[in-house]
Amino acid sequence: MAVSQQVFLRDAMRRLNLTRDVFSMRIGVKRRALDTWLLPESSQEYRAMPEVVSRFVTEIVENDALLQKYAQSAQSGPLRDRIAYDGKHQLISVDQFTRESAEEFFRIADLMQPIARRQKVSRVLEGAVLGNLFFEASTRTRVSFGAAFCRLGGSVCDTTGFTFSSMAKGESIYDTSRVMSGYVDAMVIRHPEQGSVAEFARATNIPVVNGGDGAGEHPSQALLDLYTILTEFSRLGKLLDGAHIAMVGDLKYGRTVHSLIKLLALYKGLKFSLISPKGLEMPDYILDQISKHGHVVEPSNELKDMAGADVIYTTRVQKERFAAEELEGYSPQFQVSKAVVDQFCGPDVIIMHPLPRDSREGAHDLSVDLNDDPRLAIFRQTDNGIPVRMAIFAVLLGVEGLVQHSLRDVTWSPPSHIGPDDTVFHGLD
Amino acid sequence: MAVSQQVFLRDAMRRLNLTRDVFSMRIGVKRRALDTWLLPESSQEYRAMPEVVSRFVTEIVENDALLQKYAQSAQSGPLRDRIAYDGKHQLISVDQFTRESAEEFFRIADLMQPIARRQKVSRVLEGAVLGNLFFEASTRTRVSFGAAFCRLGGSVCDTTGFTFSSMAKGESIYDTSRVMSGYVDAMVIRHPEQGSVAEFARATNIPVVNGGDGAGEHPSQALLDLYTILTEFSRLGKLLDGAHIAMVGDLKYGRTVHSLIKLLALYKGLKFSLISPKGLEMPDYILDQISKHGHVVEPSNELKDMAGADVIYTTRVQKERFAAEELEGYSPQFQVSKAVVDQFCGPDVIIMHPLPRDSREGAHDLSVDLNDDPRLAIFRQTDNGIPVRMAIFAVLLGVEGLVQHSLRDVTWSPPSHIGPDDTVFHGLD
Amino acid sequence: MAVSQQVFLRDAMRRLNLTRDVFSMRIGVKRRALDTWLLPESSQEYRAMPEVVSRFVTEIVENDALLQKYAQSAQSGPLRDRIAYDGKHQLISVDQFTRESAEEFFRIADLMQPIARRQKVSRVLEGAVLGNLFFEASTRTRVSFGAAFCRLGGSVCDTTGFTFSSMAKGESIYDTSRVMSGYVDAMVIRHPEQGSVAEFARATNIPVVNGGDGAGEHPSQALLDLYTILTEFSRLGKLLDGAHIAMVGDLKYGRTVHSLIKLLALYKGLKFSLISPKGLEMPDYILDQISKHGHVVEPSNELKDMAGADVIYTTRVQKERFAAEELEGYSPQFQVSKAVVDQFCGPDVIIMHPLPRDSREGAHDLSVDLNDDPRLAIFRQTDNGIPVRMAIFAVLLGVEGLVQHSLRDVTWSPPSHIGPDDTVFHGLD
Repeated sequence: MAVSQQVFLRDAMRRLNLTRDVFSMRIGVKRRALDTWLLPESSQEYRAMPEVVSRFVTEIVENDALLQKYAQSAQSGPLRDRIAYDGKHQLISVDQFTRESAEEFFRIADLMQPIARRQKVSRVLEGAVLGNLFFEASTRTRVSFGAAFCRLGGSVCDTTGFTFSSMAKGESIYDTSRVMSGYVDAMVIRHPEQGSVAEFARATNIPVVNGGDGAGEHPSQALLDLYTILTEFSRLGKLLDGAHIAMVGDLKYGRTVHSLIKLLALYKGLKFSLISPKGLEMPDYILDQISKHGHVVEPSNELKDMAGADVIYTTRVQKERFAAEELEGYSPQFQVSKAVVDQFCGPDVIIMHPLPRDSREGAHDLSVDLNDDPRLAIFRQTDNGIPVRMAIFAVLLGVEGLVQHSLRDVTWSPPSHIGPDDTVFHGLD
Repeated sequence: MAVSQQVFLRDAMRRLNLTRDVFSMRIGVKRRALDTWLLPESSQEYRAMPEVVSRFVTEIVENDALLQKYAQSAQSGPLRDRIAYDGKHQLISVDQFTRESAEEFFRIADLMQPIARRQKVSRVLEGAVLGNLFFEASTRTRVSFGAAFCRLGGSVCDTTGFTFSSMAKGESIYDTSRVMSGYVDAMVIRHPEQGSVAEFARATNIPVVNGGDGAGEHPSQALLDLYTILTEFSRLGKLLDGAHIAMVGDLKYGRTVHSLIKLLALYKGLKFSLISPKGLEMPDYILDQISKHGHVVEPSNELKDMAGADVIYTTRVQKERFAAEELEGYSPQFQVSKAVVDQFCGPDVIIMHPLPRDSREGAHDLSVDLNDDPRLAIFRQTDNGIPVRMAIFAVLLGVEGLVQHSLRDVTWSPPSHIGPDDTVFHGLD
Repeated sequence: MAVSQQVFLRDAMRRLNLTRDVFSMRIGVKRRALDTWLLPESSQEYRAMPEVVSRFVTEIVENDALLQKYAQSAQSGPLRDRIAYDGKHQLISVDQFTRESAEEFFRIADLMQPIARRQKVSRVLEGAVLGNLFFEASTRTRVSFGAAFCRLGGSVCDTTGFTFSSMAKGESIYDTSRVMSGYVDAMVIRHPEQGSVAEFARATNIPVVNGGDGAGEHPSQALLDLYTILTEFSRLGKLLDGAHIAMVGDLKYGRTVHSLIKLLALYKGLKFSLISPKGLEMPDYILDQISKHGHVVEPSNELKDMAGADVIYTTRVQKERFAAEELEGYSPQFQVSKAVVDQFCGPDVIIMHPLPRDSREGAHDLSVDLNDDPRLAIFRQTDNGIPVRMAIFAVLLGVEGLVQHSLRDVTWSPPSHIGPDDTVFHGLD
């Protein structure tokens, strides 16, 4: 088996969308036995599963994949055609996804993990050039997209600054977009004005990725957030259908939570606790949209309403946006800290944040006292930006089928864990 | 035949420098028959040419190439030695070119087209590093040079900003140039002061390309402009010798038109209509230079004098350069719009612009109402920046002979046309 | 023999740490004969050494290498473990080096020379991504690190500007460092605050290189300075042990000289002439440290005290740092010019400077009248930045053993000398 037993089984459960309980019944073994097979090999209680189980699981997964494939081919064609935006291979909004296409997309992100984790190198996009156009500063997003493109073998041309020198001279978005399209093979665009990225996209046929358009969308962030939830749930043996998601912070202006909640709504029977300071509630039009899908939505202004959540998704309140008086309801008690999490949630809650978080004295963003708590998923979340953005490029450029066979081993020796506080999840498994 | 019949025949006519009429006589077929062979294969009136014609044309072209080669070897050595600047492999001015060396250069740009059009990938410059030094903002030029270098397989180090941090501390151009030369294999330099790029070039032996030096030169722009005219004329079955070129706009400060007209003057019997607002006329020293070559030069302040032109080359009037009173003669009537072009020129005029054009309300730069008019060549022109700049690097670094054998197919699938308004030239052929 | 006789013999002398006199005795030949073998092949007085000498020298060097290897393996493990910072593969301070590890490091820099000199190309780090994070402007250092990483086959993501957009929103160094570590495989960090780079380094396990932290350290500069001295001495047949080093200029704030003198102090019996304007003397804590190692230290305020030096290391006085009155003792007479060097030093002194030097009218930094003087080593010094920074990356990422076998010939044809004033050292040999 090329992958470890742990990865093989987790992956199988995720593909089949089964909990540990249901999965153990499906293959006719005790839940307790399954648990020992799912431990890391270095664990004392680890047991190897019998060969016959491995074969059985392989067969179940393959049959399921076959069925899905038939179902897909019925939907016709490659993923990039099914998620196309206005007939083009562009990613402008999360609205381009269905549950099925999102999950197919995440299987491609899975393919990228050996590269993202620096075990493998791919040069599948060698010769391709990315135009990474940032009309608004966002260093992390820019580097994340750039590094993702490089890890597929491509080259990156960056532009930063509030405007192009040519746009300052009155050049239209139409001209800028068409000119850049003659130079590069794909564009990521970050722009402060809502709708501007779609305008760029209309002026070209090459792949355009929305890297954030003001109060509009930031689809790659929402995709990596959902991918993180699914991956964490897979580790924990949970399903997303029926889960309890608490969103905490600025739910009014937080573009991230708007896009994420739309994607989550593609699943079934979720409960959303939407906890915000007064005046920063989730807009009604989004509440309406979510409720229509039959999810339970519970707005609140108090942290205690996160009780029992499977996911706490925190966002920063951008105080610079508000006059002092508007922030009355927003006090230090609002901070998600270790004490709060311990009081209201269990040992397998996962805590997320789109970052950056404000760690300055006096800010009451997500507390740093959770930094060595394994429930804090924020760095696993940001790490997932690489495979997800690689998958975006691979799909839009139509090379996702070539990646697997393009892999070779890395030549250098990366550290076993990136961060000194990265927890190894022995205890949790 | 590796290329389509259409490309094969067009290419032959261009290499032989023959019109359709003369070419059809040269090979002894009816002009009408030639026209049907020149249609795209998808056209209903398309006809395949007989095998014998293909062989005949091949032989004519090869013999011609042989003759040219003998002529060249008489001129001694590789192109980069013949266009050398002060004995070095550097591109500082269009004055480095003769008609012969320019045309030889364009044959190398032709070689780059399969790469520029994303059919092929080359890694011939793998391991080489470009220093892309922009002491003045020019995003499009910077990205165009950078992408061209990447498409040859090289890596790019960008610097932007009005000055180097070190030059702010009193470092000389001599030191800056020599230090950077130890890091990179070629430099593109954009600098606001005329003559500064030549000063950079004197301090190093590595290839330096002038990316624009204030009121001085911008040779890569002039080369891509001439290449565009030759390519468009080839499509239209026209010759540049004897053509009518109208230049419209700011002819006084427009560095672009100064360099271009010098290159055009290398051809024979051209007619130049130089149309500008009062006070923005082409400088006398350039007029003298052009007239000496026996070209007809007709200065004017009225758009109607473009009548019958084969090329309309428009430039932006940089209003920010002038006090309001100086611009008296310059009114909205001066704008080159669809109505103007229809009134004064024929269906096969080509309309060019160095870009950016000012599309703001109230500006009267080249009108956007031509955007879906196939005569508008501005995006074909900017697209040509890539093969031309690739050719510059290939020639200066001496790898032009290696490119052909370094080609491999692209792995990704680019759109058939880059821009949604890119016209397919069925009707025009 | 793959390398020239000259390089072979020089290299042997450097590895064995022997002068020409001692080396000629060691191999039992006349000093005069050795001198003719050490001339460039193009020299009239050049003689080929007999085959038996070549074999003898090879054997001596190999035995010596074997002994060193045994000694090293006694010290246990690869270089990056022996120079580790806080147990990690990071380069924060020159204090991480011993004489032995510095010399082992320089042998790796030697390996990089064929690449740095554009004879060979390596792609050993293909697929790796460098985060080149400059929170303070330093174009030359940024490009030098970037080009070095590219020359090993990697890709570079640059960030420049006084702050990250996210750090402006209150993000901690801990978060920034950990997030970037998920995107890239190594980071170079330049930051205006002393100690900040170490803080970045603590938050990640990936390789971090200190690219200068305010008044703190700039270890890559000190390493390339020492490498330059050793290389120049090798050419001149000198040893560093017992040499006379004159440091001239601002010795109080010059971070460069502080780091360099610490590295030099690892050698034996040096004499340091520390010549500065009044008020800009080398700090006492550094003097104490150096004296402890048994070196002779002679502070001075007069240029004449450089008399007889083997190396003159000049630094710029950053006048902008001082009020006018503080600079009283600092006059144009303080400038190191050709006249000064001729008066006080011999024909084989080498003159260095960390650059940039101030070449403006009125500045009295290192004079440009030395530009075509072969004793001026400043451009050989800056050129050494590439192999030294390549070696840093190769060592920290653990690929130094793979470089040799990854080499292939360059495809392009670089100039024989980078700078028009680069002297060929016929006369000096």
